[in-house]
Amino acid sequence: MKKCRIEVCLAPPLMEGFSADEGLLIVVCDILRATSTICAAFDNKVAKIIPVASVKEAHEFKKQGYFVAGERGGIKLDFADAGNSPLEMQQAPIKGKTIVLTTTNGTQAIYQAALLGKVFIGSFLNLKALCSLLGKFGGNLLIVCAGWENKVSLEDTLFAGALAGELLKRDNFYINSDEARLACDLWQVAKSDIGSYIKKASHFQRLTETGQADSVDYCFKTGVSDAVPVFDNGFILNLNE
Amino acid sequence: MKKCRIEVCLAPPLMEGFSADEGLLIVVCDILRATSTICAAFDNKVAKIIPVASVKEAHEFKKQGYFVAGERGGIKLDFADAGNSPLEMQQAPIKGKTIVLTTTNGTQAIYQAALLGKVFIGSFLNLKALCSLLGKFGGNLLIVCAGWENKVSLEDTLFAGALAGELLKRDNFYINSDEARLACDLWQVAKSDIGSYIKKASHFQRLTETGQADSVDYCFKTGVSDAVPVFDNGFILNLNE
Repeated sequence: MKKCRIEVCLAPPLMEGFSADEGLLIVVCDILRATSTICAAFDNKVAKIIPVASVKEAHEFKKQGYFVAGERGGIKLDFADAGNSPLEMQQAPIKGKTIVLTTTNGTQAIYQAALLGKVFIGSFLNLKALCSLLGKFGGNLLIVCAGWENKVSLEDTLFAGALAGELLKRDNFYINSDEARLACDLWQVAKSDIGSYIKKASHFQRLTETGQADSVDYCFKTGVSDAVPVFDNGFILNLNE
Repeated sequence: MKKCRIEVCLAPPLMEGFSADEGLLIVVCDILRATSTICAAFDNKVAKIIPVASVKEAHEFKKQGYFVAGERGGIKLDFADAGNSPLEMQQAPIKGKTIVLTTTNGTQAIYQAALLGKVFIGSFLNLKALCSLLGKFGGNLLIVCAGWENKVSLEDTLFAGALAGELLKRDNFYINSDEARLACDLWQVAKSDIGSYIKKASHFQRLTETGQADSVDYCFKTGVSDAVPVFDNGFILNLNE
């Protein structure tokens, strides 16, 4: 069996160091909270998600009657139907619909990553479903952390370490990059009490200051979602539908 | 006393996320091996070092009679008098001279960082001397990791954590960024047996493959150098001369 390499890109500006590759599988993560929110939306039976990079585009979709979820700087956009919370998305009237999502970091990272390979959406929620699928696909993997405003974030680095660690339990994956080792070692430090550890994260503090810390605990629940969202031609679909 | 913030930039492409600031102090590190080599050169009483970003510039200086140290991809440049090893620099005939240095990552990082603030050269070798000086200066600090070819490296991240950790023992420093926390936590993982830990680093493996691992142990000797190199107007000088 071909051995598959796992690499990690800790923030979008570092993507320039990685090359496009036809067989490359990419997992984009923005744990707090875009990619957690996407998984929650598929758990709530949304049909498709259109990720848009700009607020202006999101507003145009809203005018056309779409359900729009979106935030900037962690705050819900005033014209949006929902912010960027997985808890909100669990309750939203989105079953069978195509909805629009725009967030500070996550949606841009998806478009940028799509230039390098096939993009899947990863979060702690769907970590197990994702691992099963990646194990079957058998291609080299790049985990792209969305980070926060072009900086590295603890929560995305931890997810990269958790996902890499889980895949390394399978025979056909290996790591040989410093970023992947760093992420795996940080996950080892944090995993026994992620709830306490994540309080150090600057985005946890930001969400707390804006009264949105309630969704953070949920974002670290591992394996509660069967969704395997994949980005294809401008839409996010659920491969495990 | 004013509290000084410590931030960490894990690789040069992430520098775009940081702003220039008149009072900002910067420590550039390229542990394997440019900044370790610079400290070793000052220990061997070099007068000044001219860091140059390109091989072409270094070659021009060589033609003018300068002592040139330089490498690309870890390999000594064919026209150079020395490579990029602190052990070599300890023996080199450079006392009282102005020499030229060009390396794959470190010299470029110095010039890029100088656009944001006052640049000091940091390594494990001069960590203690550097801490004493930074403690007295009293400005916000950005630790810039040179990394490897625009990627994050374990050894530079570890140094950032070690330096931040040492400064945090003083009352007047604090961290509130995810990169700084990540670096500090990684250092906690590695510090009890850095000699073993660093064998995971891709650049350790690269140096081993090219027969240059002998200098790695030296690069992790903490506090053996009194040098406090500072970059000023195209030259690196020793503040502690």
